[in-house]
Amino acid sequence: MIDKSRQPELARRVADYIVAARPDDLPEPVRREALRSFVNIVGCMLGGAGHEVVGLADDVLSEFSGPPQATLLGRARKADVLHAALINCFSSSIHAFDDTHEQAVVHPSGPVAAAILAMSERKRIAGSQFLLAFALGVEAICRLSKAISVSPAKGVFAWSQTGITAGIGSAVAAGKLLDLDASRMRHAIGIALSQAAGFRAMFGSMCSSFMTAHGAQTGLRAAILAERGFTSSEAALEGPYGFLDVFAERSDLEALAEGLGTRFEILRNTYKAYPCGAVIHPIIDACLELRRTYLMDPADIAAVSVRVAPMALALTDRRHPKNGLEARVSLHHWVAISFIRGTARIEDMDTDGAVLEPTIARFQDRVETVGDDAIAPDGAEVTVRLQDGRSLVGRVEHCVGSASRPMTDSELEQKFTGLAEGVIGPLRTREVLEMSWGVEGLPDVGALARAAA
Amino acid sequence: MIDKSRQPELARRVADYIVAARPDDLPEPVRREALRSFVNIVGCMLGGAGHEVVGLADDVLSEFSGPPQATLLGRARKADVLHAALINCFSSSIHAFDDTHEQAVVHPSGPVAAAILAMSERKRIAGSQFLLAFALGVEAICRLSKAISVSPAKGVFAWSQTGITAGIGSAVAAGKLLDLDASRMRHAIGIALSQAAGFRAMFGSMCSSFMTAHGAQTGLRAAILAERGFTSSEAALEGPYGFLDVFAERSDLEALAEGLGTRFEILRNTYKAYPCGAVIHPIIDACLELRRTYLMDPADIAAVSVRVAPMALALTDRRHPKNGLEARVSLHHWVAISFIRGTARIEDMDTDGAVLEPTIARFQDRVETVGDDAIAPDGAEVTVRLQDGRSLVGRVEHCVGSASRPMTDSELEQKFTGLAEGVIGPLRTREVLEMSWGVEGLPDVGALARAAA
Repeated sequence: MIDKSRQPELARRVADYIVAARPDDLPEPVRREALRSFVNIVGCMLGGAGHEVVGLADDVLSEFSGPPQATLLGRARKADVLHAALINCFSSSIHAFDDTHEQAVVHPSGPVAAAILAMSERKRIAGSQFLLAFALGVEAICRLSKAISVSPAKGVFAWSQTGITAGIGSAVAAGKLLDLDASRMRHAIGIALSQAAGFRAMFGSMCSSFMTAHGAQTGLRAAILAERGFTSSEAALEGPYGFLDVFAERSDLEALAEGLGTRFEILRNTYKAYPCGAVIHPIIDACLELRRTYLMDPADIAAVSVRVAPMALALTDRRHPKNGLEARVSLHHWVAISFIRGTARIEDMDTDGAVLEPTIARFQDRVETVGDDAIAPDGAEVTVRLQDGRSLVGRVEHCVGSASRPMTDSELEQKFTGLAEGVIGPLRTREVLEMSWGVEGLPDVGALARAAA
Repeated sequence: MIDKSRQPELARRVADYIVAARPDDLPEPVRREALRSFVNIVGCMLGGAGHEVVGLADDVLSEFSGPPQATLLGRARKADVLHAALINCFSSSIHAFDDTHEQAVVHPSGPVAAAILAMSERKRIAGSQFLLAFALGVEAICRLSKAISVSPAKGVFAWSQTGITAGIGSAVAAGKLLDLDASRMRHAIGIALSQAAGFRAMFGSMCSSFMTAHGAQTGLRAAILAERGFTSSEAALEGPYGFLDVFAERSDLEALAEGLGTRFEILRNTYKAYPCGAVIHPIIDACLELRRTYLMDPADIAAVSVRVAPMALALTDRRHPKNGLEARVSLHHWVAISFIRGTARIEDMDTDGAVLEPTIARFQDRVETVGDDAIAPDGAEVTVRLQDGRSLVGRVEHCVGSASRPMTDSELEQKFTGLAEGVIGPLRTREVLEMSWGVEGLPDVGALARAAA
């Protein structure tokens, strides 16, 4: 039980657990899932490294960047660790192809991995410590987000849950690698929380991923400041007008601080099979299956009705995306793509041809949406009305890549290869993939970052 | 009238005004008040430059800093402009001695001045353009904060109003110096808003001023990104789940966007006569006057009752501050200092001797507080009960430095000199003071920053 009178009990519990945790404390399934999360996010980082928006941010901000401490994965250059954390996280998130913790409504691995990959070139870090820090950072993000998701301030997901929690994950993971004591760990968390930012109006813009990247950078900076004695407030997390207070109407304190070391949120982490908002995935599955089963010609389709969880509509009901960034969070786009092309790949959104093609835009006009509380966020029901009057229904209980139908290791490897090969070539891709699966055994994780340059 | 159906009308109005504004458009009183605000904040920047917490942040973060583009005022070194904006704003705010716009509940000049002083060494900036950009940045902060202050989210000032609005001021002012067009200006504002952060639990900690400094840095970065084509969302300010939506229960759209170019919030800006939270100032005035009038010996005082606006209690009801940072927002501390020492100076809070002195701490125990809606935020009533049973009452309608009793130019100069002389010596102080008053005539404002090194 949480004793609210003993503030800051939550902050103490969380910090004490993180400081005390040892690599051997991670149960085998947690180790495995941390590895799978890490492999997935390194692939995403490489796959996003060549995106023009990532290039723009890197180019513009390199003017202010310090010494070349850390590798920008897939960009063949180094920068100071704060810049590297920003850009590597931005790469990992830009295609909306990363990971999702459904209950926490976050994409936790990017900010954590970006922060500690950068740290691993500033200081020699052994793989077992690295994977532990990674798992702890992911845990912190998921738990903090769950704590406010039960009743978020300003209604359902006004805030970018990943944006406002990225900092704690980055701070916790980096702080662990800096061997912060419990007091400094609390201050690192407090500094990071005091800079938590991001709201939903930015979804579908360049700022969507940039908010997450900003969290990675501020969290890393917070840990480094705290190491040297910069302090925050003991009220930062749970005190009056602290993080929980301003970002939630009501907090689930148990979700944040109960079962630390025995219950691991990372076991519920999932990896995206398609490069778009996770709530669109079951819709794509249903559309692709209908197309395959009935060998549909898109010209025969008069209308498509999509029945999904209300949250899916809140996040992705966007009929005519104007560019690839908006297409990431447009269910209409992916319904059209699925039926017209029978695919759901990066190239189906990141070229003007895909997003602005008139046949795609016209098809988007034929898509209707219905919110239904009875449908889970990883499910969907798609009804196609054909020109000849027939109706065909496709139902997906749990989409590919959901917790109930997880990506296999082999599927993760295919995803990794597809993302990385075009950026660093097949030989390096194989090497970095093997190093990622074997990260625990690396005496110096910096070698992985350098191999992925 | 604001037509809410024409989104993003507000963002357009604000950006269009900023882009079109010319130095000659500033009415004479606005020019004057902008100069007074600028003189005051340069003094604060110099006065805070030697603070150990500023030094800590600068030392730690210099590891990641880029080329020496811009002067850190009073610190005799240069750094990249993003680092300079962070540290110079941190200096300006660390003593809580800056400026206050009472209705907007913000300290607007620090983030704006820090951003554009840094910019003025990256690119040659003429003084008239500089002062215009400064005035526009202050205007943006005050208007945005007023727009949400009428009914802020999560109750009265859960958020750090300066923290969450610093970015727009910095972005607007820097964007003006970059000659952004209206579209890029809207995107600069949107990027900055998407990183708006800071809540009240951090008040009294190192993070209190650091949140403002962070806003200065992120706003400047936003303007530089926008110049090069980085975009945000047109919904950032006023759209669903945009800034106004998440930070306010109800927004005052007129306060934000009406009367641009004719009504200037900077005319209501005020300059602190004491280094602490502005709502404490009338209390100090009342205590000092009681002490002077009745020649009180603190040993004769049995109890002190302080009657102030409820907001003053919300922000500064903190009986036993543990250090100088907490003392800035402890009315009890300043009541004790006022009666015991008859002063209210930086040295009355920034040494352990002042804050932790047992006579001060014991006196704090004798202070009671009462919130009274009938008292304005710049007023106070202090009742002293003496050991002999007599009661003496001191009332202040408007404190020194308030909009009703503004600091004179001469008082501002004294404040400037007191802050700067110990840092850059009397000759340089005189020179920088003259350059600050005459900033409009400088062909290259960077010269001012360099003179203040």
